[in-house]
Amino acid sequence: MKVIIASMVVCLVLGVAGFGQDSGTDPKASIEHVLRTQQEAWNRHDLDAFMQGYWKSPELTFFSGVKESTGWQAALDRYRAVYTSPGHEMGKLDFSDLRVEILGSDAAFVRGVWQLAMSDGKTPHGRFTLIFRKVGEGWKIIHDHTSAAE
Amino acid sequence: MKVIIASMVVCLVLGVAGFGQDSGTDPKASIEHVLRTQQEAWNRHDLDAFMQGYWKSPELTFFSGVKESTGWQAALDRYRAVYTSPGHEMGKLDFSDLRVEILGSDAAFVRGVWQLAMSDGKTPHGRFTLIFRKVGEGWKIIHDHTSAAE
Repeated sequence: MKVIIASMVVCLVLGVAGFGQDSGTDPKASIEHVLRTQQEAWNRHDLDAFMQGYWKSPELTFFSGVKESTGWQAALDRYRAVYTSPGHEMGKLDFSDLRVEILGSDAAFVRGVWQLAMSDGKTPHGRFTLIFRKVGEGWKIIHDHTSAAE
Repeated sequence: MKVIIASMVVCLVLGVAGFGQDSGTDPKASIEHVLRTQQEAWNRHDLDAFMQGYWKSPELTFFSGVKESTGWQAALDRYRAVYTSPGHEMGKLDFSDLRVEILGSDAAFVRGVWQLAMSDGKTPHGRFTLIFRKVGEGWKIIHDHTSAAE
Protein backbone atom coordinates (compact mmCIF):
# COMPACT_ATOMS: atom_id res chain seq x y z
CA MET A 1 0.00 0.00 0.00
CA LYS A 2 2.81 2.37 0.98
CA VAL A 3 4.58 1.57 -2.30
CA ILE A 4 1.47 2.31 -4.35
CA ILE A 5 0.89 5.66 -2.62
CA ALA A 6 4.56 6.56 -3.03
CA SER A 7 4.39 5.62 -6.71
CA MET A 8 1.31 7.77 -7.19
CA VAL A 9 3.08 10.71 -5.54
CA VAL A 10 6.13 10.29 -7.81
CA CYS A 11 3.92 9.99 -10.92
CA LEU A 12 1.95 13.07 -9.80
CA VAL A 13 5.14 15.10 -9.24
CA LEU A 14 6.45 14.08 -12.67
CA GLY A 15 3.09 15.04 -14.18
CA VAL A 16 2.90 18.43 -12.46
CA ALA A 17 6.49 19.16 -13.45
CA GLY A 18 5.46 18.51 -17.05
CA PHE A 19 8.10 15.80 -17.37
CA GLY A 20 9.09 15.37 -21.01
CA GLN A 21 7.23 18.48 -22.06
CA ASP A 22 8.00 22.15 -22.27
CA SER A 23 5.75 23.28 -19.46
CA GLY A 24 6.78 26.93 -19.68
CA THR A 25 4.64 27.94 -22.63
CA ASP A 26 1.10 27.53 -23.88
CA PRO A 27 1.27 25.52 -27.15
CA LYS A 28 -1.60 27.42 -28.76
CA ALA A 29 -0.01 30.78 -27.97
CA SER A 30 3.37 29.54 -29.24
CA ILE A 31 1.86 28.40 -32.54
CA GLU A 32 -0.07 31.65 -33.00
CA HIS A 33 3.21 33.46 -32.34
CA VAL A 34 4.94 31.46 -35.11
CA LEU A 35 2.21 32.46 -37.58
CA ARG A 36 2.19 36.11 -36.50
CA THR A 37 6.00 36.16 -36.86
CA GLN A 38 5.69 34.65 -40.35
CA GLN A 39 3.13 37.26 -41.40
CA GLU A 40 5.33 40.10 -40.11
CA ALA A 41 8.42 38.64 -41.84
CA TRP A 42 6.53 38.32 -45.15
CA ASN A 43 5.30 41.89 -44.92
CA ARG A 44 8.82 43.27 -44.55
CA HIS A 45 9.73 40.98 -47.49
CA ASP A 46 12.09 38.88 -45.39
CA LEU A 47 11.62 35.41 -46.88
CA ASP A 48 14.45 33.91 -44.78
CA ALA A 49 12.70 34.94 -41.55
CA PHE A 50 9.36 33.72 -42.93
CA MET A 51 10.92 30.30 -43.61
CA GLN A 52 11.93 29.97 -39.92
CA GLY A 53 8.35 28.85 -39.29
CA TYR A 54 9.01 25.69 -41.28
CA TRP A 55 10.85 22.59 -40.08
CA LYS A 56 14.32 22.81 -41.67
CA SER A 57 14.30 19.21 -42.77
CA PRO A 58 14.30 17.20 -46.00
CA GLU A 59 11.11 15.62 -44.58
CA LEU A 60 9.08 18.85 -44.65
CA THR A 61 6.27 18.52 -47.18
CA PHE A 62 4.39 21.28 -48.97
CA PHE A 63 1.26 20.66 -51.04
CA SER A 64 0.52 23.66 -53.22
CA GLY A 65 -2.75 22.55 -54.76
CA VAL A 66 -1.91 19.22 -56.41
CA LYS A 67 1.85 19.80 -56.52
CA GLU A 68 4.15 18.47 -53.81
CA SER A 69 7.49 19.98 -52.76
CA THR A 70 9.58 17.79 -50.48
CA GLY A 71 12.11 19.32 -48.11
CA TRP A 72 12.69 22.77 -46.65
CA GLN A 73 14.92 23.85 -49.54
CA ALA A 74 12.27 22.93 -52.15
CA ALA A 75 9.67 24.93 -50.20
CA LEU A 76 11.99 27.96 -50.16
CA ASP A 77 12.76 27.53 -53.89
CA ARG A 78 9.03 27.45 -54.63
CA TYR A 79 8.40 30.66 -52.64
CA ARG A 80 11.32 32.33 -54.46
CA ALA A 81 10.03 31.27 -57.89
CA VAL A 82 6.45 32.37 -57.21
CA TYR A 83 7.05 35.58 -55.21
CA THR A 84 10.58 36.99 -55.52
CA SER A 85 11.73 36.14 -59.05
CA PRO A 86 11.73 38.96 -61.65
CA GLY A 87 8.22 40.12 -62.51
CA HIS A 88 6.80 38.82 -59.21
CA GLU A 89 6.16 40.45 -55.86
CA MET A 90 5.45 39.29 -52.32
CA GLY A 91 2.62 41.74 -51.65
CA LYS A 92 1.01 42.18 -48.24
CA LEU A 93 0.04 38.97 -46.46
CA ASP A 94 -2.90 38.59 -44.11
CA PHE A 95 -3.75 35.41 -42.20
CA SER A 96 -7.32 35.17 -40.91
CA ASP A 97 -9.83 32.70 -39.47
CA LEU A 98 -6.97 30.86 -37.70
CA ARG A 99 -8.11 27.79 -35.80
CA VAL A 100 -5.34 26.07 -33.81
CA GLU A 101 -6.20 22.59 -32.52
CA ILE A 102 -3.79 20.79 -30.19
CA LEU A 103 -3.46 17.07 -31.01
CA GLY A 104 -0.97 16.01 -28.34
CA SER A 105 1.96 17.24 -26.26
CA ASP A 106 4.04 17.90 -29.39
CA ALA A 107 1.51 18.06 -32.24
CA ALA A 108 -1.19 20.41 -33.49
CA PHE A 109 -2.87 21.50 -36.68
CA VAL A 110 -4.08 24.85 -37.94
CA ARG A 111 -6.85 25.71 -40.36
CA GLY A 112 -6.76 29.18 -41.83
CA VAL A 113 -7.28 31.64 -44.65
CA TRP A 114 -4.53 33.60 -46.41
CA GLN A 115 -4.83 36.65 -48.62
CA LEU A 116 -2.27 38.74 -50.44
CA ALA A 117 -2.81 42.36 -51.48
CA MET A 118 -0.74 43.08 -54.59
CA SER A 119 0.31 46.46 -55.94
CA ASP A 120 -1.93 46.00 -59.02
CA GLY A 121 -5.00 45.58 -56.78
CA LYS A 122 -5.23 41.81 -57.17
CA THR A 123 -5.90 39.77 -54.03
CA PRO A 124 -4.87 36.13 -54.45
CA HIS A 125 -6.25 34.13 -51.52
CA GLY A 126 -7.11 30.68 -50.29
CA ARG A 127 -7.15 28.20 -47.44
CA PHE A 128 -4.44 26.22 -45.72
CA THR A 129 -4.00 23.30 -43.37
CA LEU A 130 -0.77 23.21 -41.38
CA ILE A 131 0.60 20.37 -39.27
CA PHE A 132 2.82 21.61 -36.45
CA ARG A 133 5.20 19.56 -34.32
CA LYS A 134 7.37 20.64 -31.44
CA VAL A 135 10.88 19.86 -32.62
CA GLY A 136 13.76 20.79 -30.34
CA GLU A 137 13.73 24.56 -30.10
CA GLY A 138 10.08 25.14 -30.82
CA TRP A 139 6.90 24.59 -32.82
CA LYS A 140 7.50 24.19 -36.56
CA ILE A 141 5.31 23.51 -39.60
CA ILE A 142 6.14 19.98 -40.78
CA HIS A 143 3.44 19.86 -43.50
CA ASP A 144 1.65 22.65 -45.35
CA HIS A 145 -1.32 22.11 -47.65
CA THR A 146 -2.27 25.36 -49.34
CA SER A 147 -5.01 25.98 -51.88
CA ALA A 148 -5.28 29.13 -53.95
CA ALA A 149 -8.34 30.66 -55.61
CA GLU A 150 -8.02 30.59 -59.38
CA MET B 1 15.70 4.67 -2.78
CA LYS B 2 13.28 1.75 -2.41
CA VAL B 3 10.36 4.12 -3.02
CA ILE B 4 11.94 5.50 -6.20
CA ILE B 5 12.64 2.00 -7.58
CA ALA B 6 9.10 0.89 -6.69
CA SER B 7 7.72 4.01 -8.39
CA MET B 8 9.72 3.32 -11.51
CA VAL B 9 8.42 -0.25 -11.58
CA VAL B 10 4.81 0.93 -11.25
CA CYS B 11 5.32 3.58 -13.96
CA LEU B 12 6.94 0.98 -16.20
CA VAL B 13 4.08 -1.49 -15.69
CA LEU B 14 1.53 1.23 -16.50
CA GLY B 15 3.54 2.12 -19.59
CA VAL B 16 3.85 -1.45 -20.84
CA ALA B 17 0.13 -2.02 -20.24
CA GLY B 18 -0.54 0.99 -22.47
CA PHE B 19 -2.45 2.69 -19.66
CA GLY B 20 -4.91 5.25 -21.01
CA GLN B 21 -4.55 4.01 -24.57
CA ASP B 22 -6.23 1.39 -26.69
CA SER B 23 -3.40 -1.10 -26.71
CA GLY B 24 -5.32 -3.71 -28.70
CA THR B 25 -4.82 -2.25 -32.18
CA ASP B 26 -2.09 -0.65 -34.21
CA PRO B 27 -3.22 2.93 -34.99
CA LYS B 28 -1.50 3.01 -38.40
CA ALA B 29 -3.16 -0.26 -39.46
CA SER B 30 -6.53 1.00 -38.19
CA ILE B 31 -6.26 4.23 -40.18
CA GLU B 32 -5.16 2.39 -43.34
CA HIS B 33 -8.18 0.12 -42.84
CA VAL B 34 -10.51 3.16 -42.69
CA LEU B 35 -9.11 4.43 -46.00
CA ARG B 36 -9.23 1.01 -47.69
CA THR B 37 -12.85 0.63 -46.50
CA GLN B 38 -13.65 4.10 -47.92
CA GLN B 39 -12.12 3.21 -51.29
CA GLU B 40 -14.07 -0.07 -51.47
CA ALA B 41 -17.32 1.69 -50.47
CA TRP B 42 -16.81 4.37 -53.15
CA ASN B 43 -16.15 1.74 -55.80
CA ARG B 44 -19.43 -0.05 -55.11
CA HIS B 45 -21.03 3.44 -55.19
CA ASP B 46 -22.07 3.27 -51.54
CA LEU B 47 -21.68 6.89 -50.44
CA ASP B 48 -23.23 6.21 -47.01
CA ALA B 49 -20.55 3.59 -46.23
CA PHE B 50 -17.86 5.92 -47.61
CA MET B 51 -19.04 8.66 -45.23
CA GLN B 52 -18.50 6.36 -42.22
CA GLY B 53 -14.82 7.32 -42.44
CA TYR B 54 -15.72 10.86 -41.42
CA TRP B 55 -16.45 12.10 -37.92
CA LYS B 56 -20.25 12.46 -37.78
CA SER B 57 -20.13 15.85 -36.16
CA PRO B 58 -21.07 19.44 -36.96
CA GLU B 59 -17.38 20.18 -36.22
CA LEU B 60 -16.04 18.13 -39.15
CA THR B 61 -14.39 20.46 -41.67
CA PHE B 62 -13.77 19.86 -45.36
CA PHE B 63 -11.60 22.13 -47.50
CA SER B 64 -12.20 21.42 -51.16
CA GLY B 65 -9.65 23.74 -52.71
CA VAL B 66 -10.53 27.16 -51.32
CA LYS B 67 -14.11 26.24 -50.32
CA GLU B 68 -14.98 25.12 -46.79
CA SER B 69 -17.85 22.82 -45.82
CA THR B 70 -18.55 22.65 -42.11
CA GLY B 71 -20.18 19.59 -40.58
CA TRP B 72 -20.66 15.97 -41.65
CA GLN B 73 -23.97 16.73 -43.40
CA ALA B 74 -22.42 19.50 -45.51
CA ALA B 75 -19.61 17.14 -46.54
CA LEU B 76 -22.16 14.52 -47.60
CA ASP B 77 -24.22 17.14 -49.47
CA ARG B 78 -21.09 18.25 -51.32
CA TYR B 79 -20.24 14.66 -52.35
CA ARG B 80 -23.84 14.16 -53.52
CA ALA B 81 -23.81 17.38 -55.57
CA VAL B 82 -20.46 16.65 -57.21
CA TYR B 83 -20.73 12.88 -57.76
CA THR B 84 -24.27 11.50 -57.53
CA SER B 85 -26.54 14.26 -58.88
CA PRO B 86 -27.96 13.87 -62.42
CA GLY B 87 -25.24 14.09 -65.06
CA HIS B 88 -22.51 13.11 -62.60
CA GLU B 89 -20.88 9.80 -61.72
CA MET B 90 -18.71 8.48 -58.89
CA GLY B 91 -16.24 6.63 -61.13
CA LYS B 92 -13.55 4.32 -59.78
CA LEU B 93 -11.49 5.70 -56.90
CA ASP B 94 -7.86 4.89 -56.23
CA PHE B 95 -5.86 6.15 -53.23
CA SER B 96 -2.08 6.02 -53.58
CA ASP B 97 1.13 7.29 -51.97
CA LEU B 98 -0.54 7.09 -48.53
CA ARG B 99 1.68 8.31 -45.72
CA VAL B 100 0.18 7.87 -42.25
CA GLU B 101 1.97 9.74 -39.45
CA ILE B 102 0.94 9.19 -35.85
CA LEU B 103 0.88 12.44 -33.84
CA GLY B 104 -0.22 11.13 -30.44
CA SER B 105 -2.26 8.40 -28.78
CA ASP B 106 -5.46 9.64 -30.45
CA ALA B 107 -4.26 11.76 -33.39
CA ALA B 108 -2.64 11.23 -36.77
CA PHE B 109 -2.49 12.76 -40.21
CA VAL B 110 -2.38 11.27 -43.67
CA ARG B 111 -0.87 12.63 -46.88
CA GLY B 112 -2.05 10.99 -50.06
CA VAL B 113 -3.02 11.08 -53.70
CA TRP B 114 -6.51 10.37 -55.10
CA GLN B 115 -7.52 9.58 -58.64
CA LEU B 116 -10.86 8.81 -60.25
CA ALA B 117 -11.32 6.89 -63.47
CA MET B 118 -14.49 8.08 -65.21
CA SER B 119 -16.47 6.27 -67.91
CA ASP B 120 -15.53 8.97 -70.46
CA GLY B 121 -11.82 8.27 -69.89
CA LYS B 122 -11.19 11.37 -67.78
CA THR B 123 -9.07 10.94 -64.64
CA PRO B 124 -9.62 13.78 -62.16
CA HIS B 125 -6.94 13.55 -59.47
CA GLY B 126 -5.19 15.44 -56.73
CA ARG B 127 -3.69 15.43 -53.26
CA PHE B 128 -5.22 15.38 -49.80
CA THR B 129 -4.27 15.95 -46.20
CA LEU B 130 -6.47 14.24 -43.61
CA ILE B 131 -6.48 14.76 -39.84
CA PHE B 132 -7.60 11.67 -37.96
CA ARG B 133 -8.65 11.43 -34.32
CA LYS B 134 -9.68 8.44 -32.31
CA VAL B 135 -13.22 9.27 -31.25
CA GLY B 136 -15.11 6.67 -29.25
CA GLU B 137 -15.54 3.70 -31.54
CA GLY B 138 -12.58 4.28 -33.80
CA TRP B 139 -10.38 6.49 -35.97
CA LYS B 140 -12.31 9.14 -37.93
CA ILE B 141 -11.36 11.95 -40.31
CA ILE B 142 -12.03 15.22 -38.47
CA HIS B 143 -10.60 17.48 -41.20
CA ASP B 144 -10.11 16.89 -44.92
CA HIS B 145 -8.18 19.23 -47.20
CA THR B 146 -8.45 18.05 -50.79
CA SER B 147 -7.00 19.66 -53.92
CA ALA B 148 -8.02 18.70 -57.44
CA ALA B 149 -6.08 19.11 -60.67
CA GLU B 150 -7.80 21.57 -62.97
